[in-house]
Amino acid sequence: MKPVFVLNGPNLNMLGLREPEIYGQETLADVQQVCEAAGARLGFPIDFRQTNIEGELVSWIQGARGVACGLVINAAAYTHTSVAIHDAIKASGLPAVEVHLTNVYKREPFRHKSFVSGVVMGVICGFGGYGYVLALEALSRIVIQTSKN
Amino acid sequence: MKPVFVLNGPNLNMLGLREPEIYGQETLADVQQVCEAAGARLGFPIDFRQTNIEGELVSWIQGARGVACGLVINAAAYTHTSVAIHDAIKASGLPAVEVHLTNVYKREPFRHKSFVSGVVMGVICGFGGYGYVLALEALSRIVIQTSKN
Amino acid sequence: MKPVFVLNGPNLNMLGLREPEIYGQETLADVQQVCEAAGARLGFPIDFRQTNIEGELVSWIQGARGVACGLVINAAAYTHTSVAIHDAIKASGLPAVEVHLTNVYKREPFRHKSFVSGVVMGVICGFGGYGYVLALEALSRIVIQTSKN
Amino acid sequence: MKPVFVLNGPNLNMLGLREPEIYGQETLADVQQVCEAAGARLGFPIDFRQTNIEGELVSWIQGARGVACGLVINAAAYTHTSVAIHDAIKASGLPAVEVHLTNVYKREPFRHKSFVSGVVMGVICGFGGYGYVLALEALSRIVIQTSKN
Amino acid sequence: MKPVFVLNGPNLNMLGLREPEIYGQETLADVQQVCEAAGARLGFPIDFRQTNIEGELVSWIQGARGVACGLVINAAAYTHTSVAIHDAIKASGLPAVEVHLTNVYKREPFRHKSFVSGVVMGVICGFGGYGYVLALEALSRIVIQTSKN
Amino acid sequence: MKPVFVLNGPNLNMLGLREPEIYGQETLADVQQVCEAAGARLGFPIDFRQTNIEGELVSWIQGARGVACGLVINAAAYTHTSVAIHDAIKASGLPAVEVHLTNVYKREPFRHKSFVSGVVMGVICGFGGYGYVLALEALSRIVIQTSKN
Amino acid sequence: MKPVFVLNGPNLNMLGLREPEIYGQETLADVQQVCEAAGARLGFPIDFRQTNIEGELVSWIQGARGVACGLVINAAAYTHTSVAIHDAIKASGLPAVEVHLTNVYKREPFRHKSFVSGVVMGVICGFGGYGYVLALEALSRIVIQTSKN
Amino acid sequence: MKPVFVLNGPNLNMLGLREPEIYGQETLADVQQVCEAAGARLGFPIDFRQTNIEGELVSWIQGARGVACGLVINAAAYTHTSVAIHDAIKASGLPAVEVHLTNVYKREPFRHKSFVSGVVMGVICGFGGYGYVLALEALSRIVIQTSKN
Amino acid sequence: MKPVFVLNGPNLNMLGLREPEIYGQETLADVQQVCEAAGARLGFPIDFRQTNIEGELVSWIQGARGVACGLVINAAAYTHTSVAIHDAIKASGLPAVEVHLTNVYKREPFRHKSFVSGVVMGVICGFGGYGYVLALEALSRIVIQTSKN
Amino acid sequence: MKPVFVLNGPNLNMLGLREPEIYGQETLADVQQVCEAAGARLGFPIDFRQTNIEGELVSWIQGARGVACGLVINAAAYTHTSVAIHDAIKASGLPAVEVHLTNVYKREPFRHKSFVSGVVMGVICGFGGYGYVLALEALSRIVIQTSKN
Amino acid sequence: MKPVFVLNGPNLNMLGLREPEIYGQETLADVQQVCEAAGARLGFPIDFRQTNIEGELVSWIQGARGVACGLVINAAAYTHTSVAIHDAIKASGLPAVEVHLTNVYKREPFRHKSFVSGVVMGVICGFGGYGYVLALEALSRIVIQTSKN
Amino acid sequence: MKPVFVLNGPNLNMLGLREPEIYGQETLADVQQVCEAAGARLGFPIDFRQTNIEGELVSWIQGARGVACGLVINAAAYTHTSVAIHDAIKASGLPAVEVHLTNVYKREPFRHKSFVSGVVMGVICGFGGYGYVLALEALSRIVIQTSKN
Repeated sequence: MKPVFVLNGPNLNMLGLREPEIYGQETLADVQQVCEAAGARLGFPIDFRQTNIEGELVSWIQGARGVACGLVINAAAYTHTSVAIHDAIKASGLPAVEVHLTNVYKREPFRHKSFVSGVVMGVICGFGGYGYVLALEALSRIVIQTSKN
Repeated sequence: MKPVFVLNGPNLNMLGLREPEIYGQETLADVQQVCEAAGARLGFPIDFRQTNIEGELVSWIQGARGVACGLVINAAAYTHTSVAIHDAIKASGLPAVEVHLTNVYKREPFRHKSFVSGVVMGVICGFGGYGYVLALEALSRIVIQTSKN
Repeated sequence: MKPVFVLNGPNLNMLGLREPEIYGQETLADVQQVCEAAGARLGFPIDFRQTNIEGELVSWIQGARGVACGLVINAAAYTHTSVAIHDAIKASGLPAVEVHLTNVYKREPFRHKSFVSGVVMGVICGFGGYGYVLALEALSRIVIQTSKN
Repeated sequence: MKPVFVLNGPNLNMLGLREPEIYGQETLADVQQVCEAAGARLGFPIDFRQTNIEGELVSWIQGARGVACGLVINAAAYTHTSVAIHDAIKASGLPAVEVHLTNVYKREPFRHKSFVSGVVMGVICGFGGYGYVLALEALSRIVIQTSKN
Repeated sequence: MKPVFVLNGPNLNMLGLREPEIYGQETLADVQQVCEAAGARLGFPIDFRQTNIEGELVSWIQGARGVACGLVINAAAYTHTSVAIHDAIKASGLPAVEVHLTNVYKREPFRHKSFVSGVVMGVICGFGGYGYVLALEALSRIVIQTSKN
Repeated sequence: MKPVFVLNGPNLNMLGLREPEIYGQETLADVQQVCEAAGARLGFPIDFRQTNIEGELVSWIQGARGVACGLVINAAAYTHTSVAIHDAIKASGLPAVEVHLTNVYKREPFRHKSFVSGVVMGVICGFGGYGYVLALEALSRIVIQTSKN
Repeated sequence: MKPVFVLNGPNLNMLGLREPEIYGQETLADVQQVCEAAGARLGFPIDFRQTNIEGELVSWIQGARGVACGLVINAAAYTHTSVAIHDAIKASGLPAVEVHLTNVYKREPFRHKSFVSGVVMGVICGFGGYGYVLALEALSRIVIQTSKN
Repeated sequence: MKPVFVLNGPNLNMLGLREPEIYGQETLADVQQVCEAAGARLGFPIDFRQTNIEGELVSWIQGARGVACGLVINAAAYTHTSVAIHDAIKASGLPAVEVHLTNVYKREPFRHKSFVSGVVMGVICGFGGYGYVLALEALSRIVIQTSKN
Repeated sequence: MKPVFVLNGPNLNMLGLREPEIYGQETLADVQQVCEAAGARLGFPIDFRQTNIEGELVSWIQGARGVACGLVINAAAYTHTSVAIHDAIKASGLPAVEVHLTNVYKREPFRHKSFVSGVVMGVICGFGGYGYVLALEALSRIVIQTSKN
Repeated sequence: MKPVFVLNGPNLNMLGLREPEIYGQETLADVQQVCEAAGARLGFPIDFRQTNIEGELVSWIQGARGVACGLVINAAAYTHTSVAIHDAIKASGLPAVEVHLTNVYKREPFRHKSFVSGVVMGVICGFGGYGYVLALEALSRIVIQTSKN
Repeated sequence: MKPVFVLNGPNLNMLGLREPEIYGQETLADVQQVCEAAGARLGFPIDFRQTNIEGELVSWIQGARGVACGLVINAAAYTHTSVAIHDAIKASGLPAVEVHLTNVYKREPFRHKSFVSGVVMGVICGFGGYGYVLALEALSRIVIQTSKN
Repeated sequence: MKPVFVLNGPNLNMLGLREPEIYGQETLADVQQVCEAAGARLGFPIDFRQTNIEGELVSWIQGARGVACGLVINAAAYTHTSVAIHDAIKASGLPAVEVHLTNVYKREPFRHKSFVSGVVMGVICGFGGYGYVLALEALSRIVIQTSKN
């Protein structure tokens, strides 16, 4: 089985430290563990990564083409400004799910615009690290359906 | 256990008939069945309703106060224009999840604005009827957490 | 022959009373009579209705699916704000004509935007009740053409 | 003496329950009582109603024509979006006062726009239920003046 | 009887050739024939013209003053940008109807704005060449009414 | 008892002369008399002033701090542009009511924006000089409530 | 002495006929006479022209280069939309004055934008045909000053 | 003969000193002299004043009511922001001409908006101090015409 | 071989005279010569024209249909405002290249919008007359490719 | 040595009283003392003033021309709306520094726009009264540099 | 001879794989080959690079200063958002040409804005890899001209 | 004593080379030296760095958490577009000062928006390298104050 790439953008490595009143006390390592548990249950290896560099995120998404069976992407701050990530997801040719830890629609207006939403299957936000699990479940159904056809 | 209200807005009764190239062939009865199965698994009764009338949706949300333990809301077209539903969700005092069958961010710009998103826990869109199941799972965790505290 | 639904939105029941310097002295009963005469001439039964409730207009449009051969819609105030009526017309799968008694482009800017125009065959405005007759004539040609193919 | 219609829009039935830090602990029954007392003092019967349905509010306003001597309207959430209520007030041909419990200009920007303000005599906001009394006093002066002419 | 001027703007001479998937296979000569037939039936001579030059359209509209009894105008591309045509129609002092072959509200946003709509009696769009017939019928009623008064 | 400052902005000294079709024939002296009568009835001395100078209005509002028990402010033209008055009202620490003689929402769009509304208790407009009386009544209730606590 | 070109845009030939409540009863021939009288007094021959065609106006302005000593331009409707006239005036290398018969700032918002203003010496509007005289006087001073240097 | 008030706003006292590359070397005393000469020629006493205070300009305009026969106003920086001056000019009931030394349309965008233009007879800009002379000439014709009627 | 139409819009006949600091000293005759040389080299006859009239440009583009093998268009000022030219290019059914002498993106904002760009193969700007040669080279490759298929 | 003018706008006289949670407990007298100490250290006399009147601030800035060696300006509320102060600073011909006590970019959007910033050497905000010291230090370097050249 | 740097932004390494219906089947290696051939013909060495990282593109552009004789830049997605690349091109002091494979004006609105266009000599888009050749030809002429001066 | 991180964004390594008419002849090494001297005087070690890569700047800011006592940030071009840097500064939990060499408010509008300003203590711009010294002085006071509490 091909892995799912779970790709995390800038400042998510600060999770648990950064503004715990907004993001809670869960760390990125906790989220990784939760994803790996869900991956194990759903039959996916999980390739879990984080970077602060937009271009590295672009390269990882490109690298998923032909290697991964799907993408879970939390592009964090780059969500709202990156045409390059938008283009990379389209170029990957893979089903993808956009995840955000917080409900971005309750935050500053500049977080309401996403360049990712228009090129993914669906969006899940507001459920903390558990949102990644929901995303993996949704992806699992698509991948299995697709592999049946 | 108090039920979850799963409330559906205008034209969702046309599901399966209406623009199947956008909405697929699933009917609202199918979605209800899927929700009831998930509810049974999660330990929630499901109170599943649909209306074309904004004010009736408002009344149902109000009626959930003290009766339901949470809301799953697909306000459909009213999502984008209804301050009244926004106010009703706040007045209900309940945890709520916004669901859309389609990825609204791939559609017309007037569907990108939601008056619901700012008053719910989180948003799930783009996964068809299965998104309701994800919403119930997310709600379940909140309700259980809350009831523990 | 299947009927044409001629559906009227809020405040059109006040026609003749309401701002006669804008809307003239014709009543909605007059318009209905004119429509029925035109329907008789063109070979359509006319199902003529008015409501002040957006959701009821939505339900009537849905109910036309498979029952009517076409729609003439004057959504009045809801024209400018209703995504739900937009969605209902698409869901009906029927040819439709948008009618307004007045030339809305001579009035307040908020009446220049229509959520109906993008999902109908054509638009007729500014000719009072006689605009309904023009709409029925236009619809008649489409329905006959379609039934020939 | 013809009555004054005091018409209340969506979620006002939740008054006292809904966000007491914003709306206070007064209930709609309290407001009704205060209005009836003021009406008695000013010589008006009061016809006090609340609905969550936009179209019902439209119908009540229409129904006031020739029956009531004036309108006090708190259209709540529909204030900000309803062209239909705007049209109904004009169609009623009655003097009207717009009331809001809270100072809407201290709240979200979408509450700063009113479709009601342009078709009423005046606006009163920010004084809780007592604002209704002020509205009735203002209306009383107009009605008396008018009946004198 | 004074004639109706039926005036056509830029690129309408390409009708039938130009983007038939949008405009159909009807040519401008066909439209002229249909108008002349309708004119004959309604008792109007038809003066049917086309030009690609904005200023020529302006001159023709001016020339209608005192000569024609009404105008049917499809200003095509100039509809969306021409203040000069707007001014000319007002200067003509004649009843006018704006026609478009296609439903412009289904097309690019820059076609949704009309400088013509604010100075005509009414607007008809989306019915191909048959829309001209509807326009002539509407104009006929006005002219006859006016000549009666 | 501390006085209420009733402060009037530019051109209100022209009341009765200025555009009587908009402002009526009441003069500012009439308004002052009406306020003093209401003040006497409510138990407030009234300090009634008018100025054409924004900075003088700012100074008067500042001067009310610790001296007056409340403010009634009709900042007239400065309502729509003055951040300085906005800041002064906040700096005064006093309950304030914004009054306008006319219903500003029926007038030019530049009169719909108020820098005062966001820092006062409530707003009253459209009732001529009588609006000042309503404002004093509303203020009276606040001041009495506050003095009770 | 080189002439001043006084160039008039679309619909100005209708002056006196067109909306006399806005434009008065002066005809374009009257304006020409007034200009010629002023030219005679100031020592300028006047070359006075009118056209409805934007491109012809452009050509006339180009043709003034090296031939005229200055331009008085009333581009009428093209004022608000014509980049071509803007470019032509710059290309002419001549001092120019923009004139409007009416005070355009009292009319529709689309008449408040001018593509001419940014490339002329000054603007005069609201004084009817007499504004042309003022423009010629202003131009005279510039031309004389320039010819002195 | 009643005088014409020639009223100058902020920083015009710096004329000749301030940015001579924009405003030239003419001083305000020069402009006054030119106005007085023109006034003498036209039969008007000239009351020429300058202030940096918006409210003083407002008071002067009010003071012209019944005293002056017309206004020439260069409100300078307040042109672009002052609703109070707008209201004062209307309240004065006098014919007024707006003047600017420079062509404001060649300068920063915030100088393109005028609150004065909508309440004056006409606008003259770009001709330095000579623009005041043109304004007085235009005013003279109006005052004479009016005094004749 | 069918010719390429090289069509030039308003004021390009002033090239070399007009603002040489922006446009350089090359004349339109120079550009024509350069085009004809390139055409000779590439095997295309060149039909090179200029007009100041939008409608004439429209007619020439229409006239290219079936006659020319491609278009090079520098619509100059009409680029930014002409829906008619947009429509004509689509109606021509020909491959087209948009050329500008200057880099329009370094100039006024109103030159950044092009109604031509959306209906041509590609855009070349900023290279003076040499840009026409590049356009012909690009067109040559397309025409040859197309003629091969 | 010429003095530095340190000029303070409206409501700064309320410092220490006004919203201490935003502005702290420092009074304007404290700020003056701090400035005078810094001036003494840097070799500048300090002319420290405050006014609530925009026009007085304008006059003071004008008065600095030829008298002061530089300006430190905290125009407070007028920062965001005053074209007159913008013009006065340019007219003064002096190096100036804009200071704000608070970080205006953390406050309401209407405080993010400054008419002062475009005409000063630099901007310092967010450091309370100490920001004035920084401004004086920066000004000192400029004045010394300039006096050396 | 100094080389030309041909610099490519994010996702261009996916050329041929990525959305071939938009970008065609040409790979970046093909484009490199075409550039090197053109460079050989024109007498330029070509330094051809691609990166997904905005900051690396910035560093390469900086590195061209004094090393390369010109730049051909396809910044891809960063074109639309990167102020850093804008600044780097200005800092390089080199003539540059912006290239895009596709006609960006036919694509999403967010691709119509370029931060590159304002700091390059010219723009070429819509001609696939051949656009790079045109860019090199244009650059060649500039470099040769410049080296002659 | 913990160090202050002085972090510089893209193209600041070009200082002295890049547009000296805007940025002057100071190099980044000069700025570093000035900062180190100021740090020595104030008792702070200075950790001075520059990068062209947004993500590296993000990482450095994150790395300051618990290591540095404060941040001086000149994010250069990323100031205007980077949500990631905004988030990193908040995540660092450190007092920070935003510095710009130039007065950004005198430059292009896209430099007027800062994503940094909302999350720092204060902003200093327009004083060249000396602005860094002012920033360090301001930071010093905060750090000392904080360490005292």
